Amino acid sequence: MHSDLFLVLLYFFFFFEIHTIFLHCGITMLGMIWVRACSALVGFRAPTCVRSLHSFPGITVAQIDEEVAKLLALKAQLGDDGKTQFVLKTPKGTRDYNPKQMAIREKVFNTIIRCFKRHGAETIDTPVFELKETLTGKYGEDSKLIYDLKDQGGELLSLRYDLTVPFARYLAMNKITNIKRYHIAKVYRRDNPAMTRGRYREFYQCDFDIAGQYDAMIPDAECLKIVHEILNELDLGDFRIKVNDRRILDGMFAVCGVPDDKFRTICSTVDKLDKMSWEDVKKEMVNEKGLSEEAADQIGEYVSMQGGMDLAERLLQDHKMSQSKQACAGLSDIKLLFKYLQLFHVTDKVVFDLSLARGLDYYTGVIYEAVLTQASAVSAANEAQNCANAEESVSVGSVAGGGRYDGLVGMFDPKGRRVPCVGVSIGIERIFSIMEQKAEASPEKVRTTEVQIMVASAQKNLLEERLQLISELWNAGIKAEVMYKKNPKLLSQLQYCEEAGIPLVAILGEQELKDGVVKLRVVATREEVDISRADLISEIKRRTEA
Amino acid sequence: MHSDLFLVLLYFFFFFEIHTIFLHCGITMLGMIWVRACSALVGFRAPTCVRSLHSFPGITVAQIDEEVAKLLALKAQLGDDGKTQFVLKTPKGTRDYNPKQMAIREKVFNTIIRCFKRHGAETIDTPVFELKETLTGKYGEDSKLIYDLKDQGGELLSLRYDLTVPFARYLAMNKITNIKRYHIAKVYRRDNPAMTRGRYREFYQCDFDIAGQYDAMIPDAECLKIVHEILNELDLGDFRIKVNDRRILDGMFAVCGVPDDKFRTICSTVDKLDKMSWEDVKKEMVNEKGLSEEAADQIGEYVSMQGGMDLAERLLQDHKMSQSKQACAGLSDIKLLFKYLQLFHVTDKVVFDLSLARGLDYYTGVIYEAVLTQASAVSAANEAQNCANAEESVSVGSVAGGGRYDGLVGMFDPKGRRVPCVGVSIGIERIFSIMEQKAEASPEKVRTTEVQIMVASAQKNLLEERLQLISELWNAGIKAEVMYKKNPKLLSQLQYCEEAGIPLVAILGEQELKDGVVKLRVVATREEVDISRADLISEIKRRTEA
Repeated sequence: MHSDLFLVLLYFFFFFEIHTIFLHCGITMLGMIWVRACSALVGFRAPTCVRSLHSFPGITVAQIDEEVAKLLALKAQLGDDGKTQFVLKTPKGTRDYNPKQMAIREKVFNTIIRCFKRHGAETIDTPVFELKETLTGKYGEDSKLIYDLKDQGGELLSLRYDLTVPFARYLAMNKITNIKRYHIAKVYRRDNPAMTRGRYREFYQCDFDIAGQYDAMIPDAECLKIVHEILNELDLGDFRIKVNDRRILDGMFAVCGVPDDKFRTICSTVDKLDKMSWEDVKKEMVNEKGLSEEAADQIGEYVSMQGGMDLAERLLQDHKMSQSKQACAGLSDIKLLFKYLQLFHVTDKVVFDLSLARGLDYYTGVIYEAVLTQASAVSAANEAQNCANAEESVSVGSVAGGGRYDGLVGMFDPKGRRVPCVGVSIGIERIFSIMEQKAEASPEKVRTTEVQIMVASAQKNLLEERLQLISELWNAGIKAEVMYKKNPKLLSQLQYCEEAGIPLVAILGEQELKDGVVKLRVVATREEVDISRADLISEIKRRTEA
Repeated sequence: MHSDLFLVLLYFFFFFEIHTIFLHCGITMLGMIWVRACSALVGFRAPTCVRSLHSFPGITVAQIDEEVAKLLALKAQLGDDGKTQFVLKTPKGTRDYNPKQMAIREKVFNTIIRCFKRHGAETIDTPVFELKETLTGKYGEDSKLIYDLKDQGGELLSLRYDLTVPFARYLAMNKITNIKRYHIAKVYRRDNPAMTRGRYREFYQCDFDIAGQYDAMIPDAECLKIVHEILNELDLGDFRIKVNDRRILDGMFAVCGVPDDKFRTICSTVDKLDKMSWEDVKKEMVNEKGLSEEAADQIGEYVSMQGGMDLAERLLQDHKMSQSKQACAGLSDIKLLFKYLQLFHVTDKVVFDLSLARGLDYYTGVIYEAVLTQASAVSAANEAQNCANAEESVSVGSVAGGGRYDGLVGMFDPKGRRVPCVGVSIGIERIFSIMEQKAEASPEKVRTTEVQIMVASAQKNLLEERLQLISELWNAGIKAEVMYKKNPKLLSQLQYCEEAGIPLVAILGEQELKDGVVKLRVVATREEVDISRADLISEIKRRTEA
């Protein structure tokens, strides 16, 4: 018994030690504590474990992993005994959706899917994880945010970071050269979550992409039309779609004197302009990325420019910009894009904005991003308090983004065959946050089920009759509920209907059973009428069709 | 230049070495190769890296992880240069869904969701990963199949193994004591995939659960009614729903002389009866699990029993079985369940089967499993060739399963408060396989879009007019496509419609534009009629309403 107690105490000591170091100081000291913990524990167990570390410098990662797993299992066991506080939560940066949130989510998804289908898109699905090497080298500086799976033997896997790279992998793998598809699924980023602003580590993306060799800017214009349709239909307040082109950015960097090998890194600094002031962006360019002050200032001039087709025309004449063939190609395409957007009547919301960079590495042509601009949206997003002027109100952040990526599929093709692609991704989480807060503010109640009728009884001992009736209703396609009690009170059955928004009640009693009828009650008006069993189903359908 | 060449050669040597060991022999020798690789490489780089391993036995896991990451990044870089064969595939045990498969999947999901909604269920969603400790100790022997995420700092996470444990965690976390919810989402199991039989490592579950303190067997009976409705509606051929109760199993084990601490492990051996013969199951019980031959034989007698309410009644009289209070409670509930199932008119498909065990640890009461029994379904599942008799045809495998788990929520509640639950999970992948093969065999073509009309032109230089018209159609909610070419041939536009099953074409030409009309062509009949622009939208709606 004494040695048992001693063991328990040691367990405790060990657990708290490892717990503290693990959670608060990171795991850099794990090696040391592992040795200490083992020295303490192995007296009772396997005396080899310490020695292996001291005497055999050739210890393998697999061995260490195995030992760590054992210790963590031990820790988990201790937790199970209730000796430690079990943390009841979802992982950092993730959340559950309750039924009310799901009802709102379903509405938003339906709007988006309806739009994608209106534009003739098919849909595909891909696994939530990919081979690690499928994702390698596609996201530039953001690659550090990829979730890896533990090596449990077999392939090295990572959770998908977006839906675009899996889409490109899918096209190359199946040798598809033409497709218009949408894909709605969760993606994963080990980013710093800001959940009140709708930034999560697990979040949905709603992607629409057009792959294929087509005439310039026609599919690109359709993507912007889609963003316009969706944001209009969702009724989130005013919005603006910023447009730019990677070739214009690269051309601009070239004529401003940025060395070739710094394009990407300077590009991701420019991308921060929606969150940081120009001064801070410049500081990062000069101090961290080693750009000359002069080059930075020239970039600063360009990235302050905003306009429409006219700006594209002006820049085509710009004595510096026009020196870059790349920039000129991009500017001509922007002109063409605006022409098509005029035909779609959406230019009122579209701005050619040279500060738009977008972080992802794979874009090769036009890029765009939609932001909500209306004060109401800002306040809905709970950030109005600190936003005084219009400039800041833009910081509600992007609700959609995308662009052209003509090289990505070729990275997967063994022969490098290119499939030009353009697409857009709707950032649904931020839209949810706004819709949710709109629903909170609205007097209308969000129903979480579609139940049409409750099968109730006015007297005791009618469970079997209730079950028989509801079975008939279900078989006829009626959405119906019954209380799971032998003898529920009529009042509690009616109350349940009021709370859940169920419009009708079918009440069974001795008299009704004798007469071959059901008492149909309208919850809202309390009106009651006897309906013959034969007519019940058609009567319910008639009354609940809307 | 020479030293560069040398470096490249060394890279090659190193890459192949690590590649071979990594992929073919596992990673147990990584430590050694790491030392060798470093010794070779560090001449050019950081000479400390080898020494740190040799001289400081206190090397930390974090340091090793870091170095491994560096080497893998190096490997990835080499791969990117195209010097190695990039493997273009989805991870083992997973697959993509193409548009046709998605169309079938959508149909199946709609049937299932319609049924869940008919029964008044709300829906929730939970993250794809949970804290590792949330899943610990819930799955018994199956825990080894859980996917863990790599420790990248922060919390230890695992991919969800089912939707039931996250549901229980959700209930406890939000202190919910009553809910009827469905949840359709992917779950993850590092099992041996058998993809031709619809067994994957990533697969959908469609779960319906009722949580709350209710009168016995009423929600349980509804779950079985739901399985009956769904399998009927999906029209997969004949099926059988096996029913048993964990308390009957435990009671049976007790009266057969199985020691208490072996209930769970013997239970998971019994669970293999649908895949293994009784002889092999018995062998496992006696040889591997150390059960006496006598006890095994007694179990063997019971697990061969099948029947209905009558069998429950008979076992209640059984001189051995009736000694167990637990078994009697289970048998009485089975009787009650059958009474309710009679009211639902579903007893024709339900069998009380004492061999049904179900592997999961958390069940506490009634358990059930639905299997397809019809030869047609078997052949559809591509297994008919080897299945001669009816007994084997059952091995198509389970398409739905579930049961009562009254203790699971309490495991998450800090005060151990219990929320009784019962639920069912539809195994959708196997159903997909069957539906897919039915679709293949059917002469009817599966459409992957819902496009109603193609906006085409008969002459050149009408792109702008096409874009203007399609924009009008989209804005009116019409599902429409246009070819992304400036001057597509009329024939290729019409051919596209035939292939994609688009029923209508709106053809624009100089004459039509002059006359203010559109030529509306019915693809199937080739009938053409001029419609005024003003009437076009209502005409399309009229013709495509079905």
